[in-house]
Amino acid sequence: MGIGIDLGGTTIKGGIVNNQGKILLERLIKTQSHRGYSELLNDLLTLIKELLLYAPDEQLIGIGIPGILSGDGAIVVSCPNLRWKNVTLKKDLEARLTQEVNLVNDATAAGIAEAAFGSTLGKTSSMMITLGTGVGGGLILNGRIISGSHGVATEVGHMLMEKNFYSCGCGKNGCLETFASATALIRYCKMRMELGVESSLTTEEMLDGKIIIDAAKAGDPLALEAVNRLAKYLGWAIANISDIVDPEIYTIGGGLSYAGNFLLEKIRMETLKRLTYPQNAVPEIVLAMFRNEAGMIGAANLKRFI
Amino acid sequence: MGIGIDLGGTTIKGGIVNNQGKILLERLIKTQSHRGYSELLNDLLTLIKELLLYAPDEQLIGIGIPGILSGDGAIVVSCPNLRWKNVTLKKDLEARLTQEVNLVNDATAAGIAEAAFGSTLGKTSSMMITLGTGVGGGLILNGRIISGSHGVATEVGHMLMEKNFYSCGCGKNGCLETFASATALIRYCKMRMELGVESSLTTEEMLDGKIIIDAAKAGDPLALEAVNRLAKYLGWAIANISDIVDPEIYTIGGGLSYAGNFLLEKIRMETLKRLTYPQNAVPEIVLAMFRNEAGMIGAANLKRFI
Repeated sequence: MGIGIDLGGTTIKGGIVNNQGKILLERLIKTQSHRGYSELLNDLLTLIKELLLYAPDEQLIGIGIPGILSGDGAIVVSCPNLRWKNVTLKKDLEARLTQEVNLVNDATAAGIAEAAFGSTLGKTSSMMITLGTGVGGGLILNGRIISGSHGVATEVGHMLMEKNFYSCGCGKNGCLETFASATALIRYCKMRMELGVESSLTTEEMLDGKIIIDAAKAGDPLALEAVNRLAKYLGWAIANISDIVDPEIYTIGGGLSYAGNFLLEKIRMETLKRLTYPQNAVPEIVLAMFRNEAGMIGAANLKRFI
Repeated sequence: MGIGIDLGGTTIKGGIVNNQGKILLERLIKTQSHRGYSELLNDLLTLIKELLLYAPDEQLIGIGIPGILSGDGAIVVSCPNLRWKNVTLKKDLEARLTQEVNLVNDATAAGIAEAAFGSTLGKTSSMMITLGTGVGGGLILNGRIISGSHGVATEVGHMLMEKNFYSCGCGKNGCLETFASATALIRYCKMRMELGVESSLTTEEMLDGKIIIDAAKAGDPLALEAVNRLAKYLGWAIANISDIVDPEIYTIGGGLSYAGNFLLEKIRMETLKRLTYPQNAVPEIVLAMFRNEAGMIGAANLKRFI
C-alpha cells in the first residue's frame, strides 16, 4: 500500500493504492496555484491528512510533479504550471508529517505505474514516453528510476532533432516535442493549411490532437501527413535512445496514445527503419495500460524504484 | 587486484592490475584472427594462464571486446575485427579455467578505468566517449555499467544526427561517428579539397586525425572547419544524451582526445549551446586520463561495476 499524489496544474489527485496497483480511495482538489506556495502546501497537507484518516498506518507517500526536481529529488527546481521555482517541498511536507515523502517527475511516475502493474511489468529496463501537450519520459534501468545527476534525465521532449518551423517553449529550436506532441500536430496542420493545403480540418474550429488523429484515421491526407511526421520523429528518437540505454521495452502513454494501434504500428515501423541492429536488438514498443490514474499509482510505488 | 584483457584487432594485451589501478605486469600477443575462433581462444587461454603464474590466487578476470555482447554479457554477438559472430566466449573460457570470466565492451571498459581510478573518480554517473576511427561509449549510472537489454547500449556512434555526405559502415546514413571521428575528419577534409577548397593539407599524403588537428591548431582554415564541425555534432550528441540520462560528467578518450584542451573547449561550448537547462544542469566535460592501458585496467575492475 502507499499514498500517491498527482500534482497537476488544474487538479491535485490523491489516492490510497494497494499492493495490486488498485486505487482504493481517491480524493481530488482544485490546484489554486495563484494563491502561492504556502497556501498550495497547506492544501496538499490537508489532502494527505484526509487520505491518512483512511490509512493511518501508511508510511509511504509519493508525489508526482509536472516539473524538474533537483538531483537528490528533494527540491522542485522548476514547475511552470504551479509557478514554483526552487521550493523545498520534501522538507516542508516532512516537517509537518510523520511519514517520509518522496518526489518524482510525473512522466517517471507513469513509467513506474506501468513497470509495477502495467504494460512493462516484469521488465527490468523500460522507457515510458508520454505524448500530450509536450513529450515526457520516464526511464527504469536495473529496476531503478533514472532521475539524472541534475534531475533532468528523461527530458526526452527536448532532444534536438533538426530545425523546425517553430521554436520550443524551452527556447531551443528542433526539440522532439515540437515534432511529436499534440501541440506539434496542431501547429503543423495549421501551418500547412495556411499555405493552402486542403483538408477536412478547418482552421476555424478548435483543433486538438484527437480531432487530427480521427481525421487521419478517416483518410484526410493532411492529418495523415501530420501523424506520419509525428511517428517518424518519434521512431528516430526511440532509435537514438536505444543507442544510448537499449531498454527492453518502450511504452507509449499520454493523451495521444488514445490513437491506439493506428499510431503504434507507425511508430514501430519508423523505429525499425532507424535501429542500429534491427536484426538482433529490437525493443518492444507497446501502449501504456494506465491513463489518468498513472501518476497516483506510480507515485504511491515510487519508493521501491528509487 | 584483477586480470584485465584488452582483446584488440591487432594485439591482445593482458595485465595484472592492482587495487590502485596500476598495471603490475603486462603481456602482449598478436591477434591472429585469420586462424579462427578455436585457435584465438587457445591463444587467449595461454595468455591468461601466463598471467596466472604470477598471480595464482587471482579470481577476477575481465575481457574488453571491440564488439557487441549479448544482453547477459555471455556471448560475443558480433566482433568484425576478430571475424566473430555469436561465439560463446565466457562459457568456453570458464570451461577451461577455475576463475569466473566477465566480458565487457571495450569503450565501457575504458569508462570503468576512468570511474575507478581516473577522470571520473568519485562520480556515480559518468559517460565515456571514445573518439577514434569510430565513436564509442560507456555509461555508468548509480555505479553500474549500462550494457542494455540487448547488449547494444552506448552505441552512441550510431545515434542519427542528420543526413551526411557519406554513409556509415553500419549501413545507416547520418550516424554520429560519420561526423565526429578521425574517419569523419579525414573524409570531410578530402571531400572539401576535392571541391577545390584550399588547405595546407594535401590529398597526396596519408591524412590522419592527428595531422588534421595539428593543422587546425596551426590555423589552417579547412582543418579548423573540420574540427569545429566535429565539435558541433559531439556537443549536439552530448546535449541529447543529457536529455536522456543526465550524467554528472562526460570524459573524452580515444585517439582524438590527444587534441587536448583545444578540442575540449570547443566541445564544451557546443554542448552548452544545446543543453536544455544551461543555467542549472550543466555536466562536466573532461579529458580521459588513461590511454592505451584503459581497456586492461577497466576489464580487471569490471566485476564491481556490473
